[in-house]
Amino acid sequence: MTARLPSLLFASLLSVFSLNAQAEEGMWTFDNLPVDGLKANYQFTPDKVWVDHAMRASVNLGGCSASFISPQGLIMTNHHCVAGCLQQISSAKKNYLLDGFLARKNEDEMRCPVTEASRLEQITDVTNVVNAATKGLTGEAYKNAQNAIDAKLTADCVGDKAATVRCSVVTLYQGGQYHLYRYHRFSDVRLVWAPEEAASDFGGDPDNFNYPRFGLDASMLRAYENGKPAMVKDFFPFSADGAKAGDLVFTSGNPGRTNRLLTVSQLETLRDVGLISRIRNGYELRGNLTQYRKLGAEQARLGSNDLFFLENGLKVATGELAALQSPELMTAKRRDEVSLQKFVAASVAAKPAMKDTVGAWDAITKAQAVYRDMAREYNAIEGGQSFSTRYFALARTIVRGADERVKANGDRLPEFSSARLPLVERQISSPAPIYPEFEKLKLEFSLTKMRELLGTDDPFVVKVLGKESPEQVAKRLIDATKLGDAAFRKSLWAGDAAAIAQSDDPFIKLVREIDAQARAIRKRYENEVTAVVQKNAELIARARFAQLGSKVYPDATGTLRLSYGRADGWLERGKPVAPFTDFAGAFNRNTGAEPYALPPAWLAAKDKINLMQNYNFVSTNDIIGGNSGSPMINRNAEIVGLAFDGNVHSHGGSFWFDPKLNRTISVTSNGMREALKNIYGATELLAEINGK
Amino acid sequence: MTARLPSLLFASLLSVFSLNAQAEEGMWTFDNLPVDGLKANYQFTPDKVWVDHAMRASVNLGGCSASFISPQGLIMTNHHCVAGCLQQISSAKKNYLLDGFLARKNEDEMRCPVTEASRLEQITDVTNVVNAATKGLTGEAYKNAQNAIDAKLTADCVGDKAATVRCSVVTLYQGGQYHLYRYHRFSDVRLVWAPEEAASDFGGDPDNFNYPRFGLDASMLRAYENGKPAMVKDFFPFSADGAKAGDLVFTSGNPGRTNRLLTVSQLETLRDVGLISRIRNGYELRGNLTQYRKLGAEQARLGSNDLFFLENGLKVATGELAALQSPELMTAKRRDEVSLQKFVAASVAAKPAMKDTVGAWDAITKAQAVYRDMAREYNAIEGGQSFSTRYFALARTIVRGADERVKANGDRLPEFSSARLPLVERQISSPAPIYPEFEKLKLEFSLTKMRELLGTDDPFVVKVLGKESPEQVAKRLIDATKLGDAAFRKSLWAGDAAAIAQSDDPFIKLVREIDAQARAIRKRYENEVTAVVQKNAELIARARFAQLGSKVYPDATGTLRLSYGRADGWLERGKPVAPFTDFAGAFNRNTGAEPYALPPAWLAAKDKINLMQNYNFVSTNDIIGGNSGSPMINRNAEIVGLAFDGNVHSHGGSFWFDPKLNRTISVTSNGMREALKNIYGATELLAEINGK
Repeated sequence: MTARLPSLLFASLLSVFSLNAQAEEGMWTFDNLPVDGLKANYQFTPDKVWVDHAMRASVNLGGCSASFISPQGLIMTNHHCVAGCLQQISSAKKNYLLDGFLARKNEDEMRCPVTEASRLEQITDVTNVVNAATKGLTGEAYKNAQNAIDAKLTADCVGDKAATVRCSVVTLYQGGQYHLYRYHRFSDVRLVWAPEEAASDFGGDPDNFNYPRFGLDASMLRAYENGKPAMVKDFFPFSADGAKAGDLVFTSGNPGRTNRLLTVSQLETLRDVGLISRIRNGYELRGNLTQYRKLGAEQARLGSNDLFFLENGLKVATGELAALQSPELMTAKRRDEVSLQKFVAASVAAKPAMKDTVGAWDAITKAQAVYRDMAREYNAIEGGQSFSTRYFALARTIVRGADERVKANGDRLPEFSSARLPLVERQISSPAPIYPEFEKLKLEFSLTKMRELLGTDDPFVVKVLGKESPEQVAKRLIDATKLGDAAFRKSLWAGDAAAIAQSDDPFIKLVREIDAQARAIRKRYENEVTAVVQKNAELIARARFAQLGSKVYPDATGTLRLSYGRADGWLERGKPVAPFTDFAGAFNRNTGAEPYALPPAWLAAKDKINLMQNYNFVSTNDIIGGNSGSPMINRNAEIVGLAFDGNVHSHGGSFWFDPKLNRTISVTSNGMREALKNIYGATELLAEINGK
Repeated sequence: MTARLPSLLFASLLSVFSLNAQAEEGMWTFDNLPVDGLKANYQFTPDKVWVDHAMRASVNLGGCSASFISPQGLIMTNHHCVAGCLQQISSAKKNYLLDGFLARKNEDEMRCPVTEASRLEQITDVTNVVNAATKGLTGEAYKNAQNAIDAKLTADCVGDKAATVRCSVVTLYQGGQYHLYRYHRFSDVRLVWAPEEAASDFGGDPDNFNYPRFGLDASMLRAYENGKPAMVKDFFPFSADGAKAGDLVFTSGNPGRTNRLLTVSQLETLRDVGLISRIRNGYELRGNLTQYRKLGAEQARLGSNDLFFLENGLKVATGELAALQSPELMTAKRRDEVSLQKFVAASVAAKPAMKDTVGAWDAITKAQAVYRDMAREYNAIEGGQSFSTRYFALARTIVRGADERVKANGDRLPEFSSARLPLVERQISSPAPIYPEFEKLKLEFSLTKMRELLGTDDPFVVKVLGKESPEQVAKRLIDATKLGDAAFRKSLWAGDAAAIAQSDDPFIKLVREIDAQARAIRKRYENEVTAVVQKNAELIARARFAQLGSKVYPDATGTLRLSYGRADGWLERGKPVAPFTDFAGAFNRNTGAEPYALPPAWLAAKDKINLMQNYNFVSTNDIIGGNSGSPMINRNAEIVGLAFDGNVHSHGGSFWFDPKLNRTISVTSNGMREALKNIYGATELLAEINGK
């Protein structure tokens, strides 16, 4: 649905929008929390013990957030964060997405094939080291130096502990700061509990990003070490009472990406190129998946997860486009940009070093023009948009891996640096099944899009399709490939480039045939777009620090952030929306027809359930995609909820935050306990959560 | 594909764009041809005989263009203009879209169930009459007066000749002029020849709006009167030689709609509301249809026509959005708007009547805000977007028809005015089959979109869906309706409102249940949006005449226009595109895989065909959707081609015309004759075309 913001909103946004965070706005790094705002608004000042504890009780699931909630490594996250695992451990005979899952004892907990949990343990400021490495460099030299220093810092950080340590250099404030994050890895993660999809995703796509809401988007995992439940010192216990309206609540999670500090020309590129293309392709794929899933129960199962995330992403993209099309947003962005530019111009006399910054916006604008001109080719040839199948992704990883691993660590494509290889190897050796017929659908679709995008006569298209149709190519490649077999993949990965050159697997051959062209366009993109943008964004970021001081938070980067807010509804076109829903509401909303059909276990348990128990609630926390699964904690660092969505107004959150309308949606801690007790009879799990 | 116009283009456009038509720009009414431009550029001045002859040899097919090409009522148009007829006369056993059609004698010509041809015979300026009727009125009173004068003028024009005469009031220059058009109707139209879809649509969606091109998008119909071929005095004979590069060529056809005279606020509404919504829904429906067509040969046949027109429309919408997102276009539009506003402001002293015009742009902008606010509801409830099935359209026509026909002619909804009833009754009684399973796909899709657009809790959604899913509702309604039976529809149509109130047909009941709400939102839309826009657009149009004189052409209105140009290629990113293709190129492009698979008859005839014969060509004529099927004639009014498409740059043609890049694509007259002779062996047809 197009996020239509009432006109009053814009008036209010114009007055509140500012690069200087106000009210509950902000996704704050743990080493720079908004203590003044917290103190002023909520009379609360987290001490170092509180902060360190919250950091170490939080979990990163790679694209999702989570938290430890018991000393035996029990992890709480959203159902939609474990949907991939549920699909991977399901089969045509047993569908855990449909039926749910509950392990009553440790031995019954099922390992997720690729899921990995990590806990942030240390943050080190390496800004000076990175700046020294890239000083005075531009274009390719700048990009190479950045890759090299990244590879060195992460390799040194991991040392010989690759099995248990993960490190990455995080670019904060668009390059204003570089921090080295060290994580503890938990690579053995097992499923403990998941409700039926009909309960977790009750309301489906129509209710997604809407409120009031009635979803049990919750699940439990357990981290294992050495084959036993991982013992953790830091975890969040459940609050005895949960939260009530007005309570101060925090999310501690990993927001994936915001675009609040982008320049106006970058926002325009997103509006005119990126979002439109995502919307066109995504809606068309949605139609294909919808019909494919009607072919039978097995096709419905295979397409379920892809469709869920596609629909979610389409709502976001549509909402973001609406935000970028509102003249109010662009006017505010231009005003702030001009203000910073004036500040820079006025500072040059006193600080001659700022001279370079004067031209930074212009340089980024020019890089956008380069990108607009090459976007089709880049996305089709290197971006992988033409080959939307896991076989291709695996083949490219194998082919490039062999080429890259023989190079010095600092010279490799960054995704093959030594610190990242363990994650790559997990993908190669994953036992998760791949379904050829479903992959054909996606590959045929993306090959069709490739031809549409580049044109029938484009040499790349001619090379890939030859005299065949997209359908014929997809069938021929997938019928012949052996890349669905993890053992086969591992044997190729173990070989060198010469061995891979001998392979007659059709995807390996395809990647080899197009890789020179793909690498060339990637290099051009990185040198003429990425490097230019990043170098100049660094200059702008430093100017922003000079203008506004440190009371600015960085754009989301998929790493740990704290946001604070209060449980509170909002005014929707003048009508108040209550902050809490209850179980009675879920039963009222039940029609028996998908996606409003409560599962049989719920209908059977209706008499046992406390229908007045609170179930979902909204709060003023500033979150975004990637925050899914974030624990919602109170000032005592106790679980009062589990964040799983934002309301419709949160789509604009990619570009700004409006405390009046933007809301986080969570399952209440009381609601989870009610369901575990009276619907799922999860006695043992409940005892563990309750610390008994 | 996003129409990416190279940056050079914008520089050139900025210099050529002007409300004052230049070079080949313009879709001219036959009573105001650009004689000065024609004389200056081509030393040609059409006399009255030439103009009257061209007007009467031209044919309107309702959404498509066509022309008489023999004195026995033979009509030439595009294959895609008769695709609907081909589908209607096909069945699961015989697929004329796939196989093509050829009648060697009159008795074998097959009647198209709903196709109607009409010939424009008279244009009368009724501007003063319309203005007098609406003078001093606003809002609902203005709208009612307009409907009433429209109904009166057309009823008087048709008189008692409804079987052979059609009349309509055409709003030119956004209300600057009102003309009454009188047509001769040919309601018995039969199919004579159509090639296989694989030949007519060779290259399919990938080649659509692209060039070079190799499509035989041609077909022949015949108008009948009293059961015999209609004898016509005015027709275009085929040219002996066809056209060559540089030749002056005309299209005489019915461009459907352009938006060149819209205000900036109207263009912004189109960009932000209309196009995005069309793109989202359309691409998703495309995905659904693509998979549906894979279910089997019959499903492929049923979905073929819908998919063709959907894909065509999506390319247009995407191209239009790209044009509206280009800052260059909006800058030029704003500049012209400001220029006209200054002219108005300066004129007020001398012409006090222009005082009202000063606020016209502002009034239109406010009406746009009203529309933006109500667009979702309007489109879902009255616009028919929620019920995308022929059953619903027929049911609404039947229910409203009964309510409207008892009213005085001038008080009716305009679509039921006496002059329009014959066309409505053709739809009701059409023997064209409706396929329930295919209708379910479309209805389920549109009901899903309705819920997405309005939200699950919207009262209208609750009324339509109740406790069911979109799939369940679609199945229930379609399984029970009898509206697929033309006799049943005719019996309902023959009854009055009381009789219809008794009907238990589920679509009739649905329409009755929602019609009050639908009519209410329509009334609000017409009074607060349409009436305001039209009244103020009239003022702006008059000011534009005052500023620029009469050398302006009106936006396209689906009525007869002449455009002139020359056969000529263009420079695509610096590389010349040759104006003509030949048959050898078609065989070179043949891969054997759809959509690049020439039909068997072509492969068999390859040795007989003159491969060097020209086949398709491009020219600088200014056309747009609706011009499909337009004859391309030379200065002797002889057929040299058949227009069927524009190049990729023509998408911007909705908003402006760029003579450097915008091209019309036609089949050459020689190419048609070559195919008829050496591939289809259509000896009799060829003899008729050649006047023998």
